[in-house]
Amino acid sequence: MQTLLDTQTRLQDLHCAACNTPYSAFQLQRVSTCCGQPLVARYDLHEPLTRASGIDQAENSMWRYHSLLPLLDDANRVSLGEGWTPMLQLQRLGSRYGLRDLRLKDEGLNPTGSFKARGLSMAISKAKELGVTGCIIPTAGNAGVAMAAYCARAGMRAVVAMPSHTPKAFKEECYWYGAEVHLVHGLINDCAARVRELNADNSLLDVSTLKEPYRLEGKKTMGYELAEQLNWTLPDVLLYPAGGGTGLIGIWKALREMQALGWLPADAKLPRMVAVQSANCCPLVETRAGRQANCHSYVGQPTIANGLAVPRPLGEPLMLQVLDESNGLAVAITDEQMLEGMRELARLEGMFVAPEGAAVWMAARQLLETGWLRPEEQILLLNTGSGQKYLDNVEGRY
Amino acid sequence: MQTLLDTQTRLQDLHCAACNTPYSAFQLQRVSTCCGQPLVARYDLHEPLTRASGIDQAENSMWRYHSLLPLLDDANRVSLGEGWTPMLQLQRLGSRYGLRDLRLKDEGLNPTGSFKARGLSMAISKAKELGVTGCIIPTAGNAGVAMAAYCARAGMRAVVAMPSHTPKAFKEECYWYGAEVHLVHGLINDCAARVRELNADNSLLDVSTLKEPYRLEGKKTMGYELAEQLNWTLPDVLLYPAGGGTGLIGIWKALREMQALGWLPADAKLPRMVAVQSANCCPLVETRAGRQANCHSYVGQPTIANGLAVPRPLGEPLMLQVLDESNGLAVAITDEQMLEGMRELARLEGMFVAPEGAAVWMAARQLLETGWLRPEEQILLLNTGSGQKYLDNVEGRY
Repeated sequence: MQTLLDTQTRLQDLHCAACNTPYSAFQLQRVSTCCGQPLVARYDLHEPLTRASGIDQAENSMWRYHSLLPLLDDANRVSLGEGWTPMLQLQRLGSRYGLRDLRLKDEGLNPTGSFKARGLSMAISKAKELGVTGCIIPTAGNAGVAMAAYCARAGMRAVVAMPSHTPKAFKEECYWYGAEVHLVHGLINDCAARVRELNADNSLLDVSTLKEPYRLEGKKTMGYELAEQLNWTLPDVLLYPAGGGTGLIGIWKALREMQALGWLPADAKLPRMVAVQSANCCPLVETRAGRQANCHSYVGQPTIANGLAVPRPLGEPLMLQVLDESNGLAVAITDEQMLEGMRELARLEGMFVAPEGAAVWMAARQLLETGWLRPEEQILLLNTGSGQKYLDNVEGRY
Repeated sequence: MQTLLDTQTRLQDLHCAACNTPYSAFQLQRVSTCCGQPLVARYDLHEPLTRASGIDQAENSMWRYHSLLPLLDDANRVSLGEGWTPMLQLQRLGSRYGLRDLRLKDEGLNPTGSFKARGLSMAISKAKELGVTGCIIPTAGNAGVAMAAYCARAGMRAVVAMPSHTPKAFKEECYWYGAEVHLVHGLINDCAARVRELNADNSLLDVSTLKEPYRLEGKKTMGYELAEQLNWTLPDVLLYPAGGGTGLIGIWKALREMQALGWLPADAKLPRMVAVQSANCCPLVETRAGRQANCHSYVGQPTIANGLAVPRPLGEPLMLQVLDESNGLAVAITDEQMLEGMRELARLEGMFVAPEGAAVWMAARQLLETGWLRPEEQILLLNTGSGQKYLDNVEGRY
């Protein structure tokens, strides 16, 4: 019953997301020096690799896809069991709204309670492989907690900058992991400025979203998993909460890689991708509606979905590209709507999701009303985290 | 690559844990009417069933063992993706203490953040199968949250009685799921008394620990998983936090079932089982030391490990039997020690565990000091839950 596994990573190089200039994947990199844009990992996908030999079925985590992940030596893997999260049917919620096939992939079951575990497991593993001894991150909450946990597991120093209004549970958990926490008045872009000050000597690796190439590689495993869990078919529509956007970009990258590998047909109908944002902070919605050229001077407000308070995401061009290529949309949801979505998911399906996850469901409802989404389509919601750490934001609003 | 799966449950009957009297497994049962003791499910383990045909490898949850679980019809499965949790090496912690092979199975990655999800998924699925429309539970916290979630998912009424001093996060999550929550001054035995009052007309199914036969069946899947994850070998010692005791009893039941099935050798060396309790509430330690005949009039105090505040567990005789058969021990750990264990696990391994999980690690340290546990043994810790919901108990103690 043993299959021959191809355990070598297919990693080839990195390239600049804007101009395609190649960079070495075998030394420490940050953003591209040519354009100051994200660096994206590229693999050899032409050499045949079957699903049977490319997926480690015995591995109960995102690392089952390690031949398509950038780590060179498994000994550097810093893992807490992230990924390979369940995809659940929402039968009761679906029938209330007359939907044929409504599903949710529950990323709240990751270590540290959110999808951020995937990206940070990957980034910290690569950092370890490349000899890094400390990392720093600006965060809306979940990414900071995840980085603190993986740094602790790797024996690295961890420095986290987070908005002072972030719910207590995020801060406390960082302290438990022994991280150095800086509270900043403002949103994540203000935390990014603080990170630049704190790390002026560049002694720490800055693992900000898309400022190093590997969080994206962790996040893309969501794409591999959803295809595998749907038995190598794809949903008609995928709704995803987009703050920094790595998940959206990563899932799309995975779909393209699987096409190149032949794991999905080259002409597979790819899902329409919906980027869900908060009405309090929706730069993508504004850019796409033509109300601004880009997010560079967008001003956002706090929201109960802390992860959506990202006013100026570096990955905006990549996100817009995904929406364009997939015939997708960007949608904004209010905090009140998120609370309504949380109540519905909790009471009908037993899921206490993060406000971000509830936003995604409310976006589906909105798009069903406008007719953009049809009840007979297969709809996949991504819940990015557990509701637990958000108690300060939603207490008593059940 | 498809194997022929044996999808029929092997369920045969139930029997009284005290006197072995058989009971039907095909109608609703509570405790035995002969002795008022727990009813335990029995399966046909003689008809050959290989691991390849008995385990559904495609199922990423405890339901991979469904041929050895009591559900008759898969349509009644009420699941949120529980089980098949990671078993992680604790390399940094292990080397600090000179240990050869220290591992932790992290039950905090279950839906609702604890191992209770297994038992309640099973119990609520069986309740659904048997036509139950509402359930009631006395709880120290985690079991109530899990019951509320699975009842919501099943569309059942949920009534929860929990000590008023339980951390807020447990109460809030129950409310989100739409449960009716009763706060009781005292410990879980006082909650049990309230449950009897509230359910005087027997209109709700009482899913108290071991007062119905199926939570145990969910919990036993931890035993199947640990054997499968260790490639059908067993650790030398397994340390487990014992409140109500279903996990300890369930794991032992699984080991015995696997021996009967031939999945483990009939003469396999079974692990020495350590029941870890709180110094504030350690009835098992007291009974085993001969300081009381049994727990019937034991008086416990609250502890930061809420799940260990079970002064009079119905399963005491079964737990003592497991300790005897396995040459095991019962150990008590103070709240201060638990905090120290939480700090070590968080800072060295990136795991924010429940105080119960930290108690288990501190018990290992204690037993290493006394020489009962040897550094060259394979040691498996069970962490039963995430630390998140315990913030009220441990805030600022990092």
